[in-house]
Amino acid sequence: MTGTVTTARAAARSLVTPERLAEFFAPRSIALVGASETSGWSRFIVAASSAVGYAGPLLPVHPRHDTIFGRPAVRTLRELPEPADLAFILAPTEAVTTVIEDAAAAGIRNVVVLASGYREAGSDGRELEDRLVAAAAGHGIVLLGPNTLGFLNTVAPAAPFALTVPLPLTAGPVGIALQSGALSSVLLAFARAQAIGVSVVASLGNEAMITTADVLDYLVADEHTRVICLFLEEIGDPAAFSAAAQRADQAGKPIVALKVGASQAGQQAALAHTGAIAGDDAVVDAALRQLNIIRVSSIEELLTTGALLGYHPVPRGRRMGVLTASGGACDIIADRASAAELQIPPFAPETATAIGAHLPSCAAVRNPLDVTGYVLANARTSPLTAIDHALDAALDDPGLDFVLFTGFTIPEARPPDDRLAGLLESRVGWLADRIRRAPIPVIGMSPTCTDITGYTRELLAAHDLHVISGMDLGIQAIGNALRWQAGRGTVRPLPGRGPEAAGSGSAGLPWSEQAARELVAAAGIPVVPGRLASSGDEAVVAAREVGLPVAIKTCAAGITHKSDIGGVALGLRSEDEVRAAYARVTAAATAAAGDTLAADNTGGQVLVTAMRTGGVEVLAGVSVDAGFGPVLAVGLGGVFVEVLHDVSLRVLPVDAAGVEAMLRELRGFPLLAGARGGVAADLPAVAKVISDIGELACSVPGLLALEVNPLWVHGEQVEALDVLVVTDDNEYPQSEMEPGR
Amino acid sequence: MTGTVTTARAAARSLVTPERLAEFFAPRSIALVGASETSGWSRFIVAASSAVGYAGPLLPVHPRHDTIFGRPAVRTLRELPEPADLAFILAPTEAVTTVIEDAAAAGIRNVVVLASGYREAGSDGRELEDRLVAAAAGHGIVLLGPNTLGFLNTVAPAAPFALTVPLPLTAGPVGIALQSGALSSVLLAFARAQAIGVSVVASLGNEAMITTADVLDYLVADEHTRVICLFLEEIGDPAAFSAAAQRADQAGKPIVALKVGASQAGQQAALAHTGAIAGDDAVVDAALRQLNIIRVSSIEELLTTGALLGYHPVPRGRRMGVLTASGGACDIIADRASAAELQIPPFAPETATAIGAHLPSCAAVRNPLDVTGYVLANARTSPLTAIDHALDAALDDPGLDFVLFTGFTIPEARPPDDRLAGLLESRVGWLADRIRRAPIPVIGMSPTCTDITGYTRELLAAHDLHVISGMDLGIQAIGNALRWQAGRGTVRPLPGRGPEAAGSGSAGLPWSEQAARELVAAAGIPVVPGRLASSGDEAVVAAREVGLPVAIKTCAAGITHKSDIGGVALGLRSEDEVRAAYARVTAAATAAAGDTLAADNTGGQVLVTAMRTGGVEVLAGVSVDAGFGPVLAVGLGGVFVEVLHDVSLRVLPVDAAGVEAMLRELRGFPLLAGARGGVAADLPAVAKVISDIGELACSVPGLLALEVNPLWVHGEQVEALDVLVVTDDNEYPQSEMEPGR
Repeated sequence: MTGTVTTARAAARSLVTPERLAEFFAPRSIALVGASETSGWSRFIVAASSAVGYAGPLLPVHPRHDTIFGRPAVRTLRELPEPADLAFILAPTEAVTTVIEDAAAAGIRNVVVLASGYREAGSDGRELEDRLVAAAAGHGIVLLGPNTLGFLNTVAPAAPFALTVPLPLTAGPVGIALQSGALSSVLLAFARAQAIGVSVVASLGNEAMITTADVLDYLVADEHTRVICLFLEEIGDPAAFSAAAQRADQAGKPIVALKVGASQAGQQAALAHTGAIAGDDAVVDAALRQLNIIRVSSIEELLTTGALLGYHPVPRGRRMGVLTASGGACDIIADRASAAELQIPPFAPETATAIGAHLPSCAAVRNPLDVTGYVLANARTSPLTAIDHALDAALDDPGLDFVLFTGFTIPEARPPDDRLAGLLESRVGWLADRIRRAPIPVIGMSPTCTDITGYTRELLAAHDLHVISGMDLGIQAIGNALRWQAGRGTVRPLPGRGPEAAGSGSAGLPWSEQAARELVAAAGIPVVPGRLASSGDEAVVAAREVGLPVAIKTCAAGITHKSDIGGVALGLRSEDEVRAAYARVTAAATAAAGDTLAADNTGGQVLVTAMRTGGVEVLAGVSVDAGFGPVLAVGLGGVFVEVLHDVSLRVLPVDAAGVEAMLRELRGFPLLAGARGGVAADLPAVAKVISDIGELACSVPGLLALEVNPLWVHGEQVEALDVLVVTDDNEYPQSEMEPGR
Repeated sequence: MTGTVTTARAAARSLVTPERLAEFFAPRSIALVGASETSGWSRFIVAASSAVGYAGPLLPVHPRHDTIFGRPAVRTLRELPEPADLAFILAPTEAVTTVIEDAAAAGIRNVVVLASGYREAGSDGRELEDRLVAAAAGHGIVLLGPNTLGFLNTVAPAAPFALTVPLPLTAGPVGIALQSGALSSVLLAFARAQAIGVSVVASLGNEAMITTADVLDYLVADEHTRVICLFLEEIGDPAAFSAAAQRADQAGKPIVALKVGASQAGQQAALAHTGAIAGDDAVVDAALRQLNIIRVSSIEELLTTGALLGYHPVPRGRRMGVLTASGGACDIIADRASAAELQIPPFAPETATAIGAHLPSCAAVRNPLDVTGYVLANARTSPLTAIDHALDAALDDPGLDFVLFTGFTIPEARPPDDRLAGLLESRVGWLADRIRRAPIPVIGMSPTCTDITGYTRELLAAHDLHVISGMDLGIQAIGNALRWQAGRGTVRPLPGRGPEAAGSGSAGLPWSEQAARELVAAAGIPVVPGRLASSGDEAVVAAREVGLPVAIKTCAAGITHKSDIGGVALGLRSEDEVRAAYARVTAAATAAAGDTLAADNTGGQVLVTAMRTGGVEVLAGVSVDAGFGPVLAVGLGGVFVEVLHDVSLRVLPVDAAGVEAMLRELRGFPLLAGARGGVAADLPAVAKVISDIGELACSVPGLLALEVNPLWVHGEQVEALDVLVVTDDNEYPQSEMEPGR
């Protein structure tokens, strides 16, 4: 069975190309199989089709009804006079296979399957889903779902979409894909409220054939989509997902993602909902950053960031001019800007002079600018107000990268006085023109997150102006956009966990420290000098060779936490101390390990290493994530990792520059830079060693963990003091590697 | 002049009582002095009065106009046939004094002054403001402003409010006071969008007479206000403000505050806008937490939290039942709940059974609950849907403290089909009734922050239901409310900085360490044993007395950072080492301090103290904030304070329980609790010593800083190892305290 499934999946993969999806997402005729007037799903599809202005036929197919929604119905797809571009299958789970056969017979190449009861319902469902994919792929049919609500496309236009579409629906630059179909309406409602236009909205369902990565590729290729917003519960195929993210990066198309499962509780809900085990959230977070995907924490932030990136060019830098009509707004913006690491530099003198000419003398000309309420309160004869003149001036300020403009205060209803309305409309026209011609982006912002409706909406739309929703969300979105901009071009694909590793499930065996040290040393990683010893005398000889003071550690098999059981002695300054420590350590190890030592007689063996003091201790550890594969964790030793959990993560591979960035992210980084009278570390050297550790880890068959802790750093000196390697049982190193055996 | 001002301010203070403000904020007749049809301010007042349904007269007063807005105008207030309850003075700055005299002559007791050009305009303006207050107070007139836009009161109703009021304006439980008047419209627009009803909105202006604390007291006393929302740029009088906050706490009335100035840039904007120097934000943050004021970071969070507290009882605990119609919403809620420290426990078995009876068999019954889209998609005959039955069941679950309910999905327009509309209306009626009778609160929540309009708004209002705006803001608000609940009854007044300290401005002098040690020891704080020594021989004797190993520190005057200049020697194990260290330390001190030692000959004096090793080093430091007075900072020694800035702050006084809470807030707290094989500290003992340090600091005249760093803690042992005291020049200790002199 597994072989058949693999073949079927491979056949399915070869079907799903961006070209094929461009066809899939733009059907000109749609059959609704199982449609009925009492079904909410059917009614939603009819309404959604009308909402997008779909002009093609909706062809009802039902085994028992003659007409549905006033349209004549056929009994099966085979009876259609010509093949529909797409069949939306509303039929119950048990009827789906027959419908697929009908579709194939009717020459239909694309289907959407609504029914649930597949992978999300357990192992029987998974088998059912495998058979469904095999059947579809066998006929060359591309399938979205099952367990999906379909999609809508405002450009095609087409909307085989079985959920409420809040009206009016605006076409625009934001492409959306969701792993929770029911959430589509919620996103569309917020998009509607904020006049955010969408290109495509796709409910991904179980991703049996068309996956998140496929839809990403399609949206990257879609010229009408300028930004991609994702709602993710899981990243099912990290390698394919990251490859698609890299293609988005190369195409300069930003991806914003609301990935749930950050909390334990969240992971349970995601598990329940999709049947997929969510990965460790910290790894997902690291991976998304490496893929330069903007991770957000709310639907509002998702769509506000998407709208900002869809409607505005990204500013070239962080220097912001702020134009408001309230000192309080200036204060709030300054606080939020500081949190988002935006800068609000003073205006250039000529800018200030130009702005001042249009302000009452009592108003202070500064950035952020408050044009004061006088502007509001005094009747106007010119269309332009003080804030408009301020904008005109600020756009030429050489010290600004963009302008935040809060001056789109337009009444909700057209003023009954035509003269006033005319002034207003001239003003907005002037603004739109000025913004279009401006050398730097102007980001229009409303003061809070309220709906954009009525005359405001019409007037802004007429001039192709977009206003982002509220100071809080707006500035967060700007920070997100600038972070994306900074990360452009840095995306490298993440390999994901190889299929050979997937089935292991082994608890693993820790290597002897000597074997681990040799592995690391062979990869060119500097290791503190050390010698094995099996008696007090040998330990003294070893200590002479590596130089006093020394440390002694047990080599007894099966002991992972050596210091906890007294298996480590540090700072031994004399030969007497070495001899005494040898006796103490081996006795403790023998007592702790008991019977497990009998077989290989390692209880009397110790490692004698040189002691290192001063400097900073770093931890570099690689673990293996179920989805993303090897993950590198870097932290400072001692309290930083254990008490403060001050760790930076990356999915491997990471080059030395990437490791240096990881080190700089640590809260404790100042210690490496020489804080508190320490010696500044040679960061490139440290980063190179850690990057080599990561590269080594990726090359060890059956690796479960590789940890150097501590990696001792003192100026230019970098040395692994302790190395732990754990592989699955089959990959335990051969005994010839261990001289003591 | 200062004396006169002080007297006038005192007279003003005695006028402003809650009773008097209850009268002030509910005028039945309002004179508009300086009103004109071309003034936006005047038009706004007329519109606002109509918006609240003000029934009393608006009496125009203008030196040149006969009628204004069709109402007959008088030339001055003196010509009014009878005194108005309140005069809103729109006249320009230079005319205000005359108008005050007119008001007094006309028997008017309450005025609002719109004009600016006072305190916010510099020292001339400050003098003008002082004279304004003196004039008003002299006549027994209570004054709001200057530089205010006035207020509105939906209950009185009255609205001498010179700014746009977005319509419809809803009366309700939220009282608002703002230090930025222009922001009122923004807040009202968001309140309107979310159907949040307000009781009073007051623009505080320059607070020349009526202060933030006064308005707080008034709103605490106002029975129609259930929660108070503040926008703050400064806390001008910390003592009065904190006393008012304590009264709010005693009355069980929550305060939510958006206090700007968190960023440096924010502080500049606040400075510019109000002329007040914003305090150090970390101190403000600590003070607000001590006053159990919920600090928020956006207008949306301010009003959403206010609405939650105004419309719902606060849940008794953190155990939340979650009812949704989307798995994606469950995921998002679980993530946000985890961030807000809410719990989503499993349903009790009987709850699950009752819920399951109304769900399709494929739906999983769990908390958070997704009733699935079937409910939406299938036509109904009963008014109740699965989510309503789930609510019914969850309300009896003994394991829940409240229920989060997302089932208020009401169309924006009444369904044209009367039967459907009837079903819908019965359903909402049933829900409202069930919620009213429920043993635990039900918090209705919309999925995102979109406006509540049309039929939805009407139907909810008709049943007195409130829905909070969006999962992100909503759960943040719930977290805020529960934090407020947990802090109830704990508020103690903060004294603020005494007036005697205000004028000092001294850079201060550090005491000799011996004087500082004696001060601390006299207050019962354990200090590590130490002896003064002025020669190598004396140092050896001292070392014998305190016991080896010892530390030696220079006592040279004028050296604050002793270790930086080599003035400290640690870990001296023998008498030879002591003697050598004495020579080294005194030589270094003499070299570093140079000439300053000549006068008092302290270069040869050292302090010999016992060494303490192991244990944890704590920092306990008191500094003096310009507004709030003495502030206690507690942190762990070494990297925690210096590299990680891991510090907890409280405005003094703080009792031992408060200090223990501070210690528990530290990221490094696990070290005190015995992490990494350390000895767990006797926390109450540590907290008592630190609390004593705080109490001592409050009693030292002219104190600028008192720092014990480190305070050594090892199990039950607590000892000050190093003490720094800085007072202003006049309070340097007398020389008899220093045996070495």
